[in-house]
Amino acid sequence: MFTDQPADSIYALGEVKLIHAIGEWLGDVSPPSPTGMGDDCALIDTSQVDRQLLTTDSVSYGRHFDDTVTARAAGEKLIKRNLSDIAAMGGYPGPALLNLLCAPNLRVDWLQEFILGIRQSCTRYQVPIVGGDIGTLPEGQFTASLSQTGYMRSQAILRSGAQAGDTLYVTGTLGGSIYHKHYSFEPRLAEGQWLAQSGQCTAMMDITDGIAKDLNALIPANCAAHIKLPALPLSPDAHRRASATGRSAIEHAFCDGEDYELLLCLRANCKTAEFEASWQQRFPETPLTRIGRLETLTGEARYIDADSKEALPWVKGFEHLTEQ
Amino acid sequence: MFTDQPADSIYALGEVKLIHAIGEWLGDVSPPSPTGMGDDCALIDTSQVDRQLLTTDSVSYGRHFDDTVTARAAGEKLIKRNLSDIAAMGGYPGPALLNLLCAPNLRVDWLQEFILGIRQSCTRYQVPIVGGDIGTLPEGQFTASLSQTGYMRSQAILRSGAQAGDTLYVTGTLGGSIYHKHYSFEPRLAEGQWLAQSGQCTAMMDITDGIAKDLNALIPANCAAHIKLPALPLSPDAHRRASATGRSAIEHAFCDGEDYELLLCLRANCKTAEFEASWQQRFPETPLTRIGRLETLTGEARYIDADSKEALPWVKGFEHLTEQ
Repeated sequence: MFTDQPADSIYALGEVKLIHAIGEWLGDVSPPSPTGMGDDCALIDTSQVDRQLLTTDSVSYGRHFDDTVTARAAGEKLIKRNLSDIAAMGGYPGPALLNLLCAPNLRVDWLQEFILGIRQSCTRYQVPIVGGDIGTLPEGQFTASLSQTGYMRSQAILRSGAQAGDTLYVTGTLGGSIYHKHYSFEPRLAEGQWLAQSGQCTAMMDITDGIAKDLNALIPANCAAHIKLPALPLSPDAHRRASATGRSAIEHAFCDGEDYELLLCLRANCKTAEFEASWQQRFPETPLTRIGRLETLTGEARYIDADSKEALPWVKGFEHLTEQ
Repeated sequence: MFTDQPADSIYALGEVKLIHAIGEWLGDVSPPSPTGMGDDCALIDTSQVDRQLLTTDSVSYGRHFDDTVTARAAGEKLIKRNLSDIAAMGGYPGPALLNLLCAPNLRVDWLQEFILGIRQSCTRYQVPIVGGDIGTLPEGQFTASLSQTGYMRSQAILRSGAQAGDTLYVTGTLGGSIYHKHYSFEPRLAEGQWLAQSGQCTAMMDITDGIAKDLNALIPANCAAHIKLPALPLSPDAHRRASATGRSAIEHAFCDGEDYELLLCLRANCKTAEFEASWQQRFPETPLTRIGRLETLTGEARYIDADSKEALPWVKGFEHLTEQ
C-alpha cells in the first residue's frame, strides 16, 4: 500500500487534485454542495429528524487491518464499524464525515480502492459522505476516521435499561473473528431497528471488544449476569481458533473481540418463545440465541456460570493501548 | 509533550482509565450518557433544528502546532478551527465528536492540558463533546480531529451565492498569522450570524489558506475579483513578517494562511455606507473592510489589481501535502 515510486504516491498528486479524485471515486455517495463537500460546512435537512445519533470510529493500518486485508475490505470496515454502533441503538444511518491521515508515500491506487470500499458500503446502507479532512502521517502510516450520524424512528435502546430478571440474547455466532469476520461482518441494522420497535428490548450494544469486556456495560449495579456457557452460539472460526491456541472454543466466543453482533436484553415478562418465533420469521438467516439472564447480585462476581453457579474466570476482553 | 518515563505516559494509564480521565477533564463540557459519551452513540435532540451543519478539522503536532504552542492553546485551536467553519455559514455551534490519535509515550499531563484547552473553548462557545475515539500513533506523533455540528437560524450563507457587482469585504486584519494569530484567533461566530441574518450577504467563507487561494471559491465562473490592494487591512504581524522575509506586507496579507477571518460578498445594491455603520455599532472591535468588487470576466485573470487593472501576481496560497 506504500510506494518508493514518487509518481505513484498521493504526495505527487497534491491536496487539491486528491480531494477532487476522492469526490470522483465516491461518486453518488458524495452529494453536491451544499448538501455535501465543497463549502465550509455541509448543510443537512434535519426537519424530519427529532432524535439524532452521533458516533465515531476509526481504522488504522497495523491495528484494525493489515496487508492480508484488501484496501476495499478496509474501506468497507470503516463504514460498517460505525453502522454497527447505529444498529446497537436501533437507529437508521444518516450522513457521515470522513477524516483521512495518510503517509505521503501512500499509493494512489491503494487509496482509490479504499475509497471504493467506502463507496460500496455507503451505497448499500445509504450513507452520504458530506465532508472530510486530509492530513499527513509519517511514511508507512494510514488512519481513517468516520463520524457517523443516524436517527431514530422509535425509542433508542440504551445500554442502561436492563433490570434483574431480563434475559440475555446475542445475534449471530461468536468467536474467531480474527480469521474473517472482523472485516466480513454485516452491521445488524435491520435487526437493531426491529428490536427497537418491538417494545421488548430493554438494553442493547454491539460486541466490539468481546462479551467478556462489553457485557459489563449492560449489567445494572445490583445485578450479575448468569451465563449458560453451553448455549453460546459458536462460529466455525471459534473452533478453528481453539485448535490454534489450545484454549476452548467457548472461551474464544466469550472473549474474542470484533464480532459486531448485538448483545441485548429482553424484559423479564417477555413471552420469549413467541418473540423468538417472530424473529425467526423476520430474520431466518440471523440466529438469535438466549445465553443467560440478569439476576440480583449476591456475591462479588458479576459473571456467573449458570450451571455451576461459580464465577466465570474470564472477565476482560480486548483492551486497546495496553497490550494483552 | 512526549516522555521517556513510562509512568508519565498514557500507555501506563491504559485505555479505560484514559477515557475516564478525559471525561473528568472535560467536566461540564461532557454531558452524561445518553446525551454524551458512554453508549454506542450519543443521542441528540434535534426537534428544534431544521437545518444542520456538519464539518470536521484536525490539529497535528508538527503541522498545525509545534513546541512553541502550549498544549492548552493547541486544544483551543482544534475547537476554534471548526467553529470558524460554522461561523463562515452564519451558523450556531452544536455538539461535537473528538478523535484522538496519540503516541503511547504522550505525557498524561500534556494531554490533560490539551483537553483543558478544549474544555475552555467549548465552555466559551457552548459546544458539548458527546463522543469520540482514541487510537495509537508511532512515538512522537499526535493528531486530534473534531467533527462539529451546528445549526442555522437564518438562511445559510454559501460560498456560491455571489454575482457580478457584489462588493468584497473581509473582517479583522490580515497577514503574519504565523507569529500569534494561528492559535490566538477568535472564530467570528457572532459576526457570521449577524451577516447571515442581514439579508445583504451573498457569499461567505473563512480564510484558512490565505485570500490568494481561498478567494477563488467565492468568484463565480463569469467573474474576476478586482482587489484594492492598498485597502487590505494589514495586521502589525504582516509588517513584522515582511521585515523578516523581504516580501511586502500586502503580499503577506493576501497570501498567508490561518487568519480565520471572514471573506464575504455584499449584494450589488446594498447600501454599503449604512451597512458599514450598523456593523461598526454592533462590532466596534472587529474591523470590516471593503477590499474590492466582483466584475464580469474580460480576460483570463481572475484576480485583478483594481488600480492598475493588471492581473495580480499571487494566485496561490498555502497548499497542504505538497511543500511550498
